Amino acid sequence: MFKDILESVAAKTPLVHSITNYVTVNDCANILLACGAAPIMADDENEVEEITSLCNALVINIGTLNVRTIDSMIKAGKRAALLAHPVVLDPVGAGASKLRTDTAFRLLKEIKFSVIRGNISEIKTIAQGTGSTKGVEADVSDAITEGNLETALAFIKNLSARTGAIIAVTGAIDIVADSRKAYVIRNGHPLMSKITGSGCMLTEVVAAYCAADPDSLLEATAAAVCAMGLCGELAYGKLLEVGGGTSTYRTLLIDFMSKLNSEMLSEGMKIESR
Amino acid sequence: MFKDILESVAAKTPLVHSITNYVTVNDCANILLACGAAPIMADDENEVEEITSLCNALVINIGTLNVRTIDSMIKAGKRAALLAHPVVLDPVGAGASKLRTDTAFRLLKEIKFSVIRGNISEIKTIAQGTGSTKGVEADVSDAITEGNLETALAFIKNLSARTGAIIAVTGAIDIVADSRKAYVIRNGHPLMSKITGSGCMLTEVVAAYCAADPDSLLEATAAAVCAMGLCGELAYGKLLEVGGGTSTYRTLLIDFMSKLNSEMLSEGMKIESR
Amino acid sequence: MFKDILESVAAKTPLVHSITNYVTVNDCANILLACGAAPIMADDENEVEEITSLCNALVINIGTLNVRTIDSMIKAGKRAALLAHPVVLDPVGAGASKLRTDTAFRLLKEIKFSVIRGNISEIKTIAQGTGSTKGVEADVSDAITEGNLETALAFIKNLSARTGAIIAVTGAIDIVADSRKAYVIRNGHPLMSKITGSGCMLTEVVAAYCAADPDSLLEATAAAVCAMGLCGELAYGKLLEVGGGTSTYRTLLIDFMSKLNSEMLSEGMKIESR
Repeated sequence: MFKDILESVAAKTPLVHSITNYVTVNDCANILLACGAAPIMADDENEVEEITSLCNALVINIGTLNVRTIDSMIKAGKRAALLAHPVVLDPVGAGASKLRTDTAFRLLKEIKFSVIRGNISEIKTIAQGTGSTKGVEADVSDAITEGNLETALAFIKNLSARTGAIIAVTGAIDIVADSRKAYVIRNGHPLMSKITGSGCMLTEVVAAYCAADPDSLLEATAAAVCAMGLCGELAYGKLLEVGGGTSTYRTLLIDFMSKLNSEMLSEGMKIESR
Repeated sequence: MFKDILESVAAKTPLVHSITNYVTVNDCANILLACGAAPIMADDENEVEEITSLCNALVINIGTLNVRTIDSMIKAGKRAALLAHPVVLDPVGAGASKLRTDTAFRLLKEIKFSVIRGNISEIKTIAQGTGSTKGVEADVSDAITEGNLETALAFIKNLSARTGAIIAVTGAIDIVADSRKAYVIRNGHPLMSKITGSGCMLTEVVAAYCAADPDSLLEATAAAVCAMGLCGELAYGKLLEVGGGTSTYRTLLIDFMSKLNSEMLSEGMKIESR
Repeated sequence: MFKDILESVAAKTPLVHSITNYVTVNDCANILLACGAAPIMADDENEVEEITSLCNALVINIGTLNVRTIDSMIKAGKRAALLAHPVVLDPVGAGASKLRTDTAFRLLKEIKFSVIRGNISEIKTIAQGTGSTKGVEADVSDAITEGNLETALAFIKNLSARTGAIIAVTGAIDIVADSRKAYVIRNGHPLMSKITGSGCMLTEVVAAYCAADPDSLLEATAAAVCAMGLCGELAYGKLLEVGGGTSTYRTLLIDFMSKLNSEMLSEGMKIESR
């Protein structure tokens, strides 16, 4: 099943429209190409509906948010949802400022997201905007560990039920869940946090995989999380061999995404169903 | 002749002003430095005329177009043309949205471009804004092949005659033409399409070469197209040797531009006059 | 002393807020991570005060300046200064347009900067906005050389006295000075000028080091300048070994920042107190 998703991306070359931040946008475009998809970035209110209509998926990423593009996000999101395109939210920095938190809440209210991908802090902020009681999130600390995994799974499934979106929380342990089923993923490498854009790039790969297999969004999202984490592991192994620092690591990470095939993914994914 | 252009860039270090997209702008700045030129990016309406006056060439690239910078493009373009600087248009995504198509047409109407560089789809869109009959373009499919080369050459020469600009169409086969003369170029490698920015970077190199040799715009443009394609070939050869994926390929592509000299270009260029 | 600063960055992981240009922003984020700090980029007027309050230092960089973010710069700068965060100005292109020059002057008038880092041309422009007599700057040519070093030192100490900021002028010879004391630094490599972002990245490292050691801003700034220059030298040495061009050099430069430790810095820094 996971294997099919990778082959489906290669066969379909999904076109992904991204309204994203200017820090990691180049990496986002390159990781889309590396994973077999194709990028279009466009954020002007006057063209986003047309552009997203030409595409197969939409990413909305609120890093370097500015008020000029919020309406663009809303318009593109509504149009993409109407066309039944997968729409993926990356609520970068939600909780860090009122603007980002309010915008995340507004986006959630006005757009039907297919997937929301963030770190645990961002996802907890999202939860506060969807009417959840404080009690649930309070039990999930700032990192998902083996110790709080059960609580985290319950929280995330509950959030998925309330939002109708697949929730992907990434960190040392990753969780991808809908309201009924969850995948716990243990791929990845700590060095991924020493380059900018690991999270943003993953969000793009999620969109690409979902666009290639829109009938299995949960599995497509889980496969993307495994794929990115596995590339992080393979890149680290190669880095030990060739030497170098964090910039070489970034290059290797994207390199492995461009070389990843179904066999590599099947062998390397560390996933369990919960 | 082509050899002289490369040496002229090295001798003059032309300063290129770019109003461009935020996806590939870092690559654009680095390829300018790599080819012996120097970059300035500035897009605020309040400074573009001053900035472009300090420079030797201007690039206008409409990727990630936003309405805030359209007037900046017009002002900079008019000023640069007035100063007889080469002005190069990269109509990224023309045809993909009304905003981009209309903006491309407005730019063509208000600015005297020296060179227009795009893929065949963008160039066909440009042609529609210059009063051409539909019939001509209809005969040129979405790719230039050996089979439709003659038709394509006629179309491109005709477009050059109508716009007064050198037209550079890039793809598997590249054509660079003015109204009377065309060059057919067969440098390049398919992997160039698996990284973002190959086209944008080429447009910058075109501007640098034209700034270095403003009296031979057709040959300067053709030399830039050959140079970029040759770097793509050399990078591919090196990639086979060192291993790696698309991100390593991007690094190698810019590396070769920084190492390219007249001898390498003379030996590697695959160009014929038509 | 310089050794302690590096260890302090590693221990504290300072969070640096940057309002910067879209050309080199990705490099800026990656060099912060590489040197042991962490980046946040945010430029919307509605969130900059909140964001900078969460951080330990602020960078204001006027490359690709646009009028939309000038008020954001002012707001963030005032808030950061109020919180006694180090605030670092990179006056990119000051002198190249009225917008940039006027904005640099306005920033200097409204914000108490801890450090101003630029090339000699930008720093001379800054000096004109602070009431200095023309005579002083006229004696400092467009490059600091052994021949005009004494004059340059006097000019820079004087500028520091007038602005209350540490002044860091970088070029073939670097000077870091307050009103009483100066460091002359001879680290670095000419190839650093063949990639975009060397200066912008240095400014980020200055902010990171100052945030880690806010009681020794002069030494923290000097250490950052040495560190960046040393990485440029080490990267060049490695480039000779592995081959490659300017893009590989950029990768190696960031790589070395991620590998730099106190011993390497102590052994490699070429600094004298004046």
